Amino acid sequence: MTANQIFEQIKKKRSFLCIGLDTDLSKIPPHLLKDEDPIFEFNKAIIEATNDIAIAYKPNLAFYERLGSDGWKSLEKIVDFIKSKHNEIFLIADAKRGDIGNTSGMYAKAFFERMNFDAVTVAPYMGKDSVSPFLQFKDKWIILLAATSNPGASDFQFIKDNIDEALYKRVIRTSSMWGNINNIMYVVGATKAELLADIRKIIPHHFLLIPGIGAQGGSLKEVVKYGMNEQCGLIVNSSRSIIYASNSENFADAAREQARIIQSEMEISLT
Amino acid sequence: MTANQIFEQIKKKRSFLCIGLDTDLSKIPPHLLKDEDPIFEFNKAIIEATNDIAIAYKPNLAFYERLGSDGWKSLEKIVDFIKSKHNEIFLIADAKRGDIGNTSGMYAKAFFERMNFDAVTVAPYMGKDSVSPFLQFKDKWIILLAATSNPGASDFQFIKDNIDEALYKRVIRTSSMWGNINNIMYVVGATKAELLADIRKIIPHHFLLIPGIGAQGGSLKEVVKYGMNEQCGLIVNSSRSIIYASNSENFADAAREQARIIQSEMEISLT
Repeated sequence: MTANQIFEQIKKKRSFLCIGLDTDLSKIPPHLLKDEDPIFEFNKAIIEATNDIAIAYKPNLAFYERLGSDGWKSLEKIVDFIKSKHNEIFLIADAKRGDIGNTSGMYAKAFFERMNFDAVTVAPYMGKDSVSPFLQFKDKWIILLAATSNPGASDFQFIKDNIDEALYKRVIRTSSMWGNINNIMYVVGATKAELLADIRKIIPHHFLLIPGIGAQGGSLKEVVKYGMNEQCGLIVNSSRSIIYASNSENFADAAREQARIIQSEMEISLT
Repeated sequence: MTANQIFEQIKKKRSFLCIGLDTDLSKIPPHLLKDEDPIFEFNKAIIEATNDIAIAYKPNLAFYERLGSDGWKSLEKIVDFIKSKHNEIFLIADAKRGDIGNTSGMYAKAFFERMNFDAVTVAPYMGKDSVSPFLQFKDKWIILLAATSNPGASDFQFIKDNIDEALYKRVIRTSSMWGNINNIMYVVGATKAELLADIRKIIPHHFLLIPGIGAQGGSLKEVVKYGMNEQCGLIVNSSRSIIYASNSENFADAAREQARIIQSEMEISLT
């Protein structure tokens, strides 16, 4: 998928919403637990109820790995379901991978060949040869961690170097030369919206994946104000506040309603 | 497992060798491919041939994920095999995980509860709350990336901050306060042996996991000279040069022979 194709979808759906599929057996509606594959059934219902207002889904690998090979099997079914029914959706493996070149190449094959994800989140600590193997796949993306939404972001990402540049900026500036605006995005937490103006000076044209709206407390308005560019340039994620809006039998309708509230706000900022 | 228990095993086996199980269908002996689970059979043979001279095994998750849920199933069988037959072995999930607290907690459950790994490698970029959830599990370990063995290590890990301290040292110094010598180890590449003297000034007592011996070109002698402490303090990994020593029918004997060569060198340094 290209940046233009993502922007076309944004214009068509009047939305730049990504729904995070952090699917947890202990949080899904109890009536699903009697199903053979509750994780798949839950996600399927959420996707069927929201695919006209979400442009992306982001399964969080930890929640599937928690269930071992069974969880991976559910994940594979979800990927196949999305890509066979809604091929226009931008599908992100939130996996935070990254290793020496040979190994990153294996991860890239896992997510881009064995499964048909469009993008995978990658941690930058191991540098260029840990990232580049992912960039060898046509129309596939990495989404590199820059300034994350969690408290621990301040431990290392904001350390200033001897030319007074914070690590997250150095990561963005350096890595943006490893690929282009059609294969690299960056993770910038919504809880760090005020940083977006600075980040836009370094990478005006890249897409940014923004987690932290909803349960983590970030403001969509601030994100739009400081981060939006001429092709939107934003994919804003919400997970728990949408998918766990209700745990009754009509959980999917409740999820759609929550997604719709966010989408309505997005629609205003796109006009 | 405690640091003392690891040291007891080192003394008993006169070895601090970890064998990396980077098991790749395209590299294992062809006669195994007719087997129902070639990945498991290959690893089982390697483990049976080497468990008296290796103190640790380290499956590299990427090589299993490359095969999707089938690969995860093979991995689960390998973990069960090792832990049922050779419970003294220190078993490392080389997974380079790390995410916001809630998600890292799920990864910890995946590797420590669903599977019975003793340790998981973790990337430090997201800071304390991405690491701490792994430290809540008794007798389990994280092995945090510090100075890795790949070329890309120089992109960010060696950036000096405004008090002239390199990032990898800052990572070690800061994170060493999040746990203790019985639940945190650090990854330091053998290709960076000269750094070990400096690292030992910050963390004299922690175990270090040292990859990069063998295919990546690091020197065991240098690693011992600069990194060994009073309880050995080293777990040195070799993957490809051991497990792919031969692809004939007697590949396991050939792997043992390669492991024995390294172990002999280790034995000298332990006396």
